[in-house]
Amino acid sequence: MLRSRDTLRTRMRAVDLIRKKRDSGEHSREEIDFLISGYTHGEIPNYQMSAWLMAVWLRGMNRSELASLTEAMLYSGEVLNHSEIPGKKVDKHSTGGVGDKTSLILAPIVAAGGLTVPMISGRGLGHTGGTLDKLESIPGFNVNLSLVEFRRVLRECGMGLIGQTAEIAPADKKIYALRDATSTVENVGLICASIMSKKLAEGIDALVLDVKTGSGAFMKREEDAVQLAEVMVETGKRMGKKMVALITDMEQPLGRAAGHSNEVAECIDVLNGRGPADVRELSIELSAWMFYLGERTNNVDEGRRLAETMITTGQARKKFRQGVRLQGGDERVIDEPQLLPRARMHSIVSSTTAGFVTGTDCEQFGVALAILGGGREKKEDKIDHAVGLEFHKRIGDPVEKDEPLATIHYNSDARLAEARTMIAASYKIGESAPREKRPLIRRILGA
Amino acid sequence: MLRSRDTLRTRMRAVDLIRKKRDSGEHSREEIDFLISGYTHGEIPNYQMSAWLMAVWLRGMNRSELASLTEAMLYSGEVLNHSEIPGKKVDKHSTGGVGDKTSLILAPIVAAGGLTVPMISGRGLGHTGGTLDKLESIPGFNVNLSLVEFRRVLRECGMGLIGQTAEIAPADKKIYALRDATSTVENVGLICASIMSKKLAEGIDALVLDVKTGSGAFMKREEDAVQLAEVMVETGKRMGKKMVALITDMEQPLGRAAGHSNEVAECIDVLNGRGPADVRELSIELSAWMFYLGERTNNVDEGRRLAETMITTGQARKKFRQGVRLQGGDERVIDEPQLLPRARMHSIVSSTTAGFVTGTDCEQFGVALAILGGGREKKEDKIDHAVGLEFHKRIGDPVEKDEPLATIHYNSDARLAEARTMIAASYKIGESAPREKRPLIRRILGA
Repeated sequence: MLRSRDTLRTRMRAVDLIRKKRDSGEHSREEIDFLISGYTHGEIPNYQMSAWLMAVWLRGMNRSELASLTEAMLYSGEVLNHSEIPGKKVDKHSTGGVGDKTSLILAPIVAAGGLTVPMISGRGLGHTGGTLDKLESIPGFNVNLSLVEFRRVLRECGMGLIGQTAEIAPADKKIYALRDATSTVENVGLICASIMSKKLAEGIDALVLDVKTGSGAFMKREEDAVQLAEVMVETGKRMGKKMVALITDMEQPLGRAAGHSNEVAECIDVLNGRGPADVRELSIELSAWMFYLGERTNNVDEGRRLAETMITTGQARKKFRQGVRLQGGDERVIDEPQLLPRARMHSIVSSTTAGFVTGTDCEQFGVALAILGGGREKKEDKIDHAVGLEFHKRIGDPVEKDEPLATIHYNSDARLAEARTMIAASYKIGESAPREKRPLIRRILGA
Repeated sequence: MLRSRDTLRTRMRAVDLIRKKRDSGEHSREEIDFLISGYTHGEIPNYQMSAWLMAVWLRGMNRSELASLTEAMLYSGEVLNHSEIPGKKVDKHSTGGVGDKTSLILAPIVAAGGLTVPMISGRGLGHTGGTLDKLESIPGFNVNLSLVEFRRVLRECGMGLIGQTAEIAPADKKIYALRDATSTVENVGLICASIMSKKLAEGIDALVLDVKTGSGAFMKREEDAVQLAEVMVETGKRMGKKMVALITDMEQPLGRAAGHSNEVAECIDVLNGRGPADVRELSIELSAWMFYLGERTNNVDEGRRLAETMITTGQARKKFRQGVRLQGGDERVIDEPQLLPRARMHSIVSSTTAGFVTGTDCEQFGVALAILGGGREKKEDKIDHAVGLEFHKRIGDPVEKDEPLATIHYNSDARLAEARTMIAASYKIGESAPREKRPLIRRILGA
């Protein structure tokens, strides 16, 4: 039966909250708690949540609503507490790109330097790679530790790399799947709440954000990356965490390798004091900020020196070996990277003209890798850890006609031609080199 | 597996169409067909449709998209064809209000005048009454005819009054339920498509729209009512129908009665040549336009005279009797309205001050009626046909202290006090009468 206006006001209903957001209203903390908790427990159906998400996408949320949303999603599940492990716990989160592999380098550097890195990572989706997938190219490596095992590994070696468990932010898991199906993914507030609710559940004291921008990033425009970074930094700080965000370049792949086992091999190279300059630079920079925010060093510069020391003394490499062993992986790969899965065939993509590399359509490298079996469109898709791309040219490099641009390592001819075409088209070759070199680290926010 | 950009473009996916509307894109006819047909057949889930509806609500549709949507919904089910019945088929649709009962008067007038009125009506929801509910207060009246029975009744007496069957616009049924739960109801385009898809499925040649505006209407502001009317008129004309829209006043209830059996009694009064002036005026005006658009008369004025003749000669009354009998109703109610269900108790709401009625919060009369059992919040709710409100004062009327404003006819004390308070508060009493009388028929569009 109908109620009069006043009676109606007393009970909370999802349909009224959808209307409120649709009409640009501001939600209270209680209203957001009601929505997130009701949805997580199945009391609010998907179709109401998706209408609300679209209203949020189009009308936006202010910072206070965003903090409420992040907290509601965070407390939809378990929030880890590592207080029995001495010292600061720090982590890094990257918004993702092509060849973005720094987690595997900085986690051992920072753990070797004396902090604890409780890293809960994701899988690759779309054109981006995922830390979990890369780790799984190491034979035996188990990313599905229980929270008890995770804590044991952390206590023993200071680093642990696992996937999101059912206990961590279940609201985010459910909402993310819905956003994916309803075109409500690309929204700064919703992205922030999704990332931060998971990261804060790790029980960390400080978080370093690597927000990518450029043709291979989700945020193609730098102003969007900056906006997301600012919102995440503010949300983290509101919750008492030390935060910094580095806006970094993704106009081209990071390093020379994209794929899984070839990226792991490149990480081992860096831990051995070699490897591509950009991967090494970014890993050291992110580690330095983790050391500084984790109060291990008095400033970032000291942090940089400590990170370099961890590499040159072999301590980071040793820590990585220990971590791999503790998570069931075959530690021999660190000395013998050829034990990693390798593709059976390779194919070289060469330049059809001479000139200079002026840019890349970086996302398309990721898509090409995915169609070769090295990525997934749906979460259920299996991936091939052995396939990969090797990049021979970077932006600004001179290139001869018929000179190799990239090598494709593949296992099936099925879509090779398509991948070759995409990779060739992704390299922009011009008559002269770009006048200015794009800096790898473009801006630092929140420091 | 991921597809490259070009391959992705070739298949249609709901998620992409949601994104398109979210980003203010314009849908093609094929895209709208894909969405509506997919949703009707259960291939597109509720949560995608509700996200799309919210995007439509916030981004809007242009006239061409709206025509496509109306057609897609219309052809989601059966479109009646009465070509075996000679002459024009005409109908009227009202956007609803309090005491709005003209269908029961104009259908017999127009059928008596020689046109066919295949009227598919709805039930009351919220503060508005519904034609089907009113008819069901006549003992035995069956609004659930099959389409075969409906056609037989139409052929025999020229008028038939039934509810939406499963065959008629199933897409609208499903979408309306979803809009109701996701705060996507009040949107001109979606309202238009919902109304027009059902009305055009009746197989009519012409449609007269009664678009209400004022405190008792869905469209409180006249400009909103005009916008909806224009869109509906244009959509109907695009589909080859003769159309007109009357913007009519709903700042106060229509007539003296709101409820079910008491409204039927008031309609019988009008068919007997009596009844409240406003009900009579509006019924004749709407009938006149139906006669004119149905090519029964050469102009509206002739239509008015014909409508009046149908009343004064008793032909409309006779037609109503025939229609009631053919649909299984007890035709004796036409001579003995006391046979209609009557409430056991009554309670008078009197004025606490002297002055003039300057306005009413008309929607609240409907809500008060509903909480007494004469309306429903959810479609499943049962209603009491006997309860009703009797209005003694109209806007502009002088009123003494303690003079009755309204009489409540009720069957249960449960929420009487609440209803009394709402009704008393809905009458605005001022020191002087409003300077100008609000015209009942405010504008005529599309003629």
